[in-house]
Amino acid sequence: MTDRKLKVAIVGLGRMGSIHATNFAYFVPRAEVVAVCDVRDESLQWAKENLPPTVKGYKDVEEMFKTSGAEATLIVTETSRHAPLAELAMSYGLHVLLEKPISVDLETSRRVVETAKKYPNLKAMVAFVRRFDDSNRELKALVDSGKLGKLHTLRSGSNDQYDESGFFVKFSATSGGLFTDVGVHDIDQARWMCGVPNGCPNPKQEISRVFAIGQAVQHPELAQLGDADNGFGIVEFTNGVNAILHLGRIARNGHECYLEVYGTECRVNVNNDAQANKLEIRDLHGVRKESHQTHFARFKEAFVKELQDFTACVLDDRPLPVNLQDALEASKIAYALTLSFRKGVPVFFDEQGEIIPPQ
Amino acid sequence: MTDRKLKVAIVGLGRMGSIHATNFAYFVPRAEVVAVCDVRDESLQWAKENLPPTVKGYKDVEEMFKTSGAEATLIVTETSRHAPLAELAMSYGLHVLLEKPISVDLETSRRVVETAKKYPNLKAMVAFVRRFDDSNRELKALVDSGKLGKLHTLRSGSNDQYDESGFFVKFSATSGGLFTDVGVHDIDQARWMCGVPNGCPNPKQEISRVFAIGQAVQHPELAQLGDADNGFGIVEFTNGVNAILHLGRIARNGHECYLEVYGTECRVNVNNDAQANKLEIRDLHGVRKESHQTHFARFKEAFVKELQDFTACVLDDRPLPVNLQDALEASKIAYALTLSFRKGVPVFFDEQGEIIPPQ
Amino acid sequence: MTDRKLKVAIVGLGRMGSIHATNFAYFVPRAEVVAVCDVRDESLQWAKENLPPTVKGYKDVEEMFKTSGAEATLIVTETSRHAPLAELAMSYGLHVLLEKPISVDLETSRRVVETAKKYPNLKAMVAFVRRFDDSNRELKALVDSGKLGKLHTLRSGSNDQYDESGFFVKFSATSGGLFTDVGVHDIDQARWMCGVPNGCPNPKQEISRVFAIGQAVQHPELAQLGDADNGFGIVEFTNGVNAILHLGRIARNGHECYLEVYGTECRVNVNNDAQANKLEIRDLHGVRKESHQTHFARFKEAFVKELQDFTACVLDDRPLPVNLQDALEASKIAYALTLSFRKGVPVFFDEQGEIIPPQ
Amino acid sequence: MTDRKLKVAIVGLGRMGSIHATNFAYFVPRAEVVAVCDVRDESLQWAKENLPPTVKGYKDVEEMFKTSGAEATLIVTETSRHAPLAELAMSYGLHVLLEKPISVDLETSRRVVETAKKYPNLKAMVAFVRRFDDSNRELKALVDSGKLGKLHTLRSGSNDQYDESGFFVKFSATSGGLFTDVGVHDIDQARWMCGVPNGCPNPKQEISRVFAIGQAVQHPELAQLGDADNGFGIVEFTNGVNAILHLGRIARNGHECYLEVYGTECRVNVNNDAQANKLEIRDLHGVRKESHQTHFARFKEAFVKELQDFTACVLDDRPLPVNLQDALEASKIAYALTLSFRKGVPVFFDEQGEIIPPQ
Repeated sequence: MTDRKLKVAIVGLGRMGSIHATNFAYFVPRAEVVAVCDVRDESLQWAKENLPPTVKGYKDVEEMFKTSGAEATLIVTETSRHAPLAELAMSYGLHVLLEKPISVDLETSRRVVETAKKYPNLKAMVAFVRRFDDSNRELKALVDSGKLGKLHTLRSGSNDQYDESGFFVKFSATSGGLFTDVGVHDIDQARWMCGVPNGCPNPKQEISRVFAIGQAVQHPELAQLGDADNGFGIVEFTNGVNAILHLGRIARNGHECYLEVYGTECRVNVNNDAQANKLEIRDLHGVRKESHQTHFARFKEAFVKELQDFTACVLDDRPLPVNLQDALEASKIAYALTLSFRKGVPVFFDEQGEIIPPQ
Repeated sequence: MTDRKLKVAIVGLGRMGSIHATNFAYFVPRAEVVAVCDVRDESLQWAKENLPPTVKGYKDVEEMFKTSGAEATLIVTETSRHAPLAELAMSYGLHVLLEKPISVDLETSRRVVETAKKYPNLKAMVAFVRRFDDSNRELKALVDSGKLGKLHTLRSGSNDQYDESGFFVKFSATSGGLFTDVGVHDIDQARWMCGVPNGCPNPKQEISRVFAIGQAVQHPELAQLGDADNGFGIVEFTNGVNAILHLGRIARNGHECYLEVYGTECRVNVNNDAQANKLEIRDLHGVRKESHQTHFARFKEAFVKELQDFTACVLDDRPLPVNLQDALEASKIAYALTLSFRKGVPVFFDEQGEIIPPQ
Repeated sequence: MTDRKLKVAIVGLGRMGSIHATNFAYFVPRAEVVAVCDVRDESLQWAKENLPPTVKGYKDVEEMFKTSGAEATLIVTETSRHAPLAELAMSYGLHVLLEKPISVDLETSRRVVETAKKYPNLKAMVAFVRRFDDSNRELKALVDSGKLGKLHTLRSGSNDQYDESGFFVKFSATSGGLFTDVGVHDIDQARWMCGVPNGCPNPKQEISRVFAIGQAVQHPELAQLGDADNGFGIVEFTNGVNAILHLGRIARNGHECYLEVYGTECRVNVNNDAQANKLEIRDLHGVRKESHQTHFARFKEAFVKELQDFTACVLDDRPLPVNLQDALEASKIAYALTLSFRKGVPVFFDEQGEIIPPQ
Repeated sequence: MTDRKLKVAIVGLGRMGSIHATNFAYFVPRAEVVAVCDVRDESLQWAKENLPPTVKGYKDVEEMFKTSGAEATLIVTETSRHAPLAELAMSYGLHVLLEKPISVDLETSRRVVETAKKYPNLKAMVAFVRRFDDSNRELKALVDSGKLGKLHTLRSGSNDQYDESGFFVKFSATSGGLFTDVGVHDIDQARWMCGVPNGCPNPKQEISRVFAIGQAVQHPELAQLGDADNGFGIVEFTNGVNAILHLGRIARNGHECYLEVYGTECRVNVNNDAQANKLEIRDLHGVRKESHQTHFARFKEAFVKELQDFTACVLDDRPLPVNLQDALEASKIAYALTLSFRKGVPVFFDEQGEIIPPQ
């Protein structure tokens, strides 16, 4: 195990970028943040006040990639810039940790996957944070141990606390909509828990069929956009496991996020009770626990672990837990669910693992 | 409120019949069991030893209807005799409490509904026991109070504890299969909670579309029979509520049975934690609670309440909480789910509330 | 098993009396309420409107005992009349079901126990309702099965929801105070679970020592009365089990009532989560369940079972689950705890099972 | 905020020492471990293999204090060496983080407190890890916010999973016994939550009275040693709060550790359900969660936070969250409980906060 630190540059200091930057700077002992990039003055000012003084601020990302000495970059910008920035970083020889998704557009995602193949020495990971959660990992270990018996069903849910501003209506087009924006985490999770390595007859064709329904409960205007604020997706894996995903943006108690795997011997649920902490409160409202308010809060520790693991994979040249191809596969399933929801029919995959466009 | 007791005759003393008979005889103060009928000697012997001495035993059901003096009958035989016995009882002027379903065959069910219309003075109820459960009724009261806000989703599950004998494979044809045999309770429950009275634009067309998937996890031979031991059904109500039903026969911890209703203001789950009682055990297996072993155990009190309520409705001439038409509607939805599962396509209902046969 | 019904007369139609009367009249098939007695016109009017028409109303209890034809009586008056009424009823040859306690005065309780010995053919039971709760009985069965291993600790709590009227301050003198009024249920429960039959070396001396502390949290004026609204009692059984009782009147979420038994192999808790029903609510207050509001609500079914069991014991001449001697023993322990609380010292029992007065 | 790192030396690399050393080396970004000391070759070998190569190994602690360049030391040796090592470290000008307790002997503890006063520029903290737990801190914040209303009761429990080797019998004399060895964490916790700053009339006299009972359940030989493997302690604070502590070494499901604070408006419990993680398992054992196996596992994150906070307090010259005086006070209460348990009487404190020896 090398003793040196990985030099990291971060692109984007928005809400999520600043969390990542803080985590990278103070909670990843094997990494050193050498540079950050954002076009906004106030973001660079924030970095000056909150990150170690050795971190250099840039407005020009290409200049940063060229001159900062970084070996790896974390890209946490708006979605549309993910793909070109990842390609640019690789062209400068940088390992890449990319916020999800690669792109809302499948062709672009596919192109980035192809580009990455030209740089076999560079690591490129997409930040599917749930793979780094301790409880999810304990569940994965149980699944792999065989203690659940033969797997047959996965049930998961992600329901953001309702934000009355309805910001997601405005971003519906650019975010990819409910099944992509909220769903891709659940899809990746399902693939990880029950997917490929669990006995698909044709590994290329991981999925046989998907079906989805959706509603515009709080924001009827979503219907015109082909989007929904609450929906269910069914994903049938060719290895026999069925996944049922509940996705939404209208929970009241907080960010709801559960994952359940059923085997013939037992079933295990992560976060069934949606409790943010160990406090049980008894007052006039009954006996209660508070839920996490956000996905950030629920996966607070996993966001740190993700950076630590990426850093270790690069420094020690170990395989990544999740790569660009995984992200592409998840995006394809998300898109197939969106298609199914919009057309009202099941959507099938062919033997090459590609979506068969419904008529 | 009349002070007299309702005279009741019971047809069928199998496992369920003997439970019903005991409940009727000892826990329904306003009823008096006057007669029971079963062709098996041992069943009549059981009745002699376990029911009050005033209860008369019959082998011939028609004779019992004619001579026992009963005003009402509880029919709890094998499913295929439900319909003819209900019709016979009505022809003798008896009120009828019929175990579910009326029939596995929609046309027969429809005929019994029509027959009943000829006897407007007779009460005929189908035993959807979950409508009589205290917790379900508290949930229904919350729903009706408006405290949940606008309803949009219902999620329910019924998963029997796995019986390794696989008896349900043998009975697949006569039981109607997973979506009818296990599912009809969940379907009736969904209609009760979120269905007709909640603003369907065309009350005749309660359902717009259903979709179902299923697996033969423990018994692959079910696939040949067009049946499954684990499945999910989606039911879209025309009033905008979507119901997601999980039906199965392969749970390990016991009979799993939950019901969850989502509104814009809150969601409420009944039996999320699947706990049979108030005991929490801490030992080498961790911190644990035991689940009900059977549907009988889960709804033990509701089975009594059901008889008490039926008795009260007859004696006081009040409307029934659930009638034959409800049972027919539930059966149609169950059949539509079965069709969807077998054909792999969504199944639609027309404006008259009838299934549109998929091509 | 006799088929005839036990004829019952009820003395007292206050809040609790009317609940008992309704239960006895409608939910105890083997009993028939023949008479009720109360000096208040409105109570007799209530009975006329709510009990079966065959129930006769009395203002004079002696006349009722003499002329109503009752074989058994339920005494549910103010505490000071319990003892004389029980004695009167026995003198008229009636079986007695007496609300707890026999008396707040140990000498009077002792006298009633002696009186009862003169009527060996009469059953006399004190209504310790918790012995009739299903979950408590399941715990008792586990204890008796040996599955808990060697018992060593019992922990229980009874905390009434705070009633801001502070009625209990006014009744402090006549109720016996916190350790008697609230505590006697917990004490009886502890004796039942872990007491006498579990290997005391000298069965006469069941208890070796008690200690108690208390506070006047909401009502400082209780301190002057030698009473408390929150307190803890320790009871050391001579068989080696220690019981820790938490008693109070100031809970906010509802009536809190738990019972926990610790053995060397496992520990089992009844009602640790204080949940009134199977509903889990998720809203702006988090994930929550509601608690029972009152002791009545928590033990609703047990109140019925208590009457049913008493009736069966009388009709079938079976031993009572709890008798006057048990009530006397519980009262002695409650009194010893009160003494300990007031004097600030441990209180010991002698080899005859009598309290050694502290100096 | 200074950017430089605190140079730390660690004394003792036993089980707990090696955990602390690993945490300090890899999870405390503002600290740098410069040296470790242990007389055992294998411990130094472990350090060479597991800690950064810049960490220097010593066998002689005085030499380490003199030559390593450390500014602070973590002392995690056997208890009897805590006090002299702390004094030695201070004499060399080092800040001290000392594992609990200072000493099992009150006079020695008192002497170390006095010694520390001679070094007003040095920080000296005792490692009461529970003060650094996120959930405990959330509870403390609620307490301080006044949301609980007026505090009156604290209930806590610490019950180690039973280790059949019974190692604690052997260490009974040197560990101080149940009330010191297990209890001191609960006592410190109680002081932190409800003690001094909450309105004691005479701050010197924090405690008015304690009482304790104990049993030797699994190891009867403990009785001869004046020790117990299960016990309860009552601590009455002069500010009116009563604390009830359950201490033991015989749990079966894992390390049980709960903390509950009662106020007039609500009560809040930390870890009532004793769940190690977010996994809910449903199998033949029912519906269950696993408990933490050890105190280490329960407070895994808090052990890191403790080091981070100590480091920050030294570097930024901020007051410590818990100091030597706190440790002395907790030890006095633990000793008073032990006395009470052994003598069978309540033990009182005088107005100077000193134990009044019972006769």
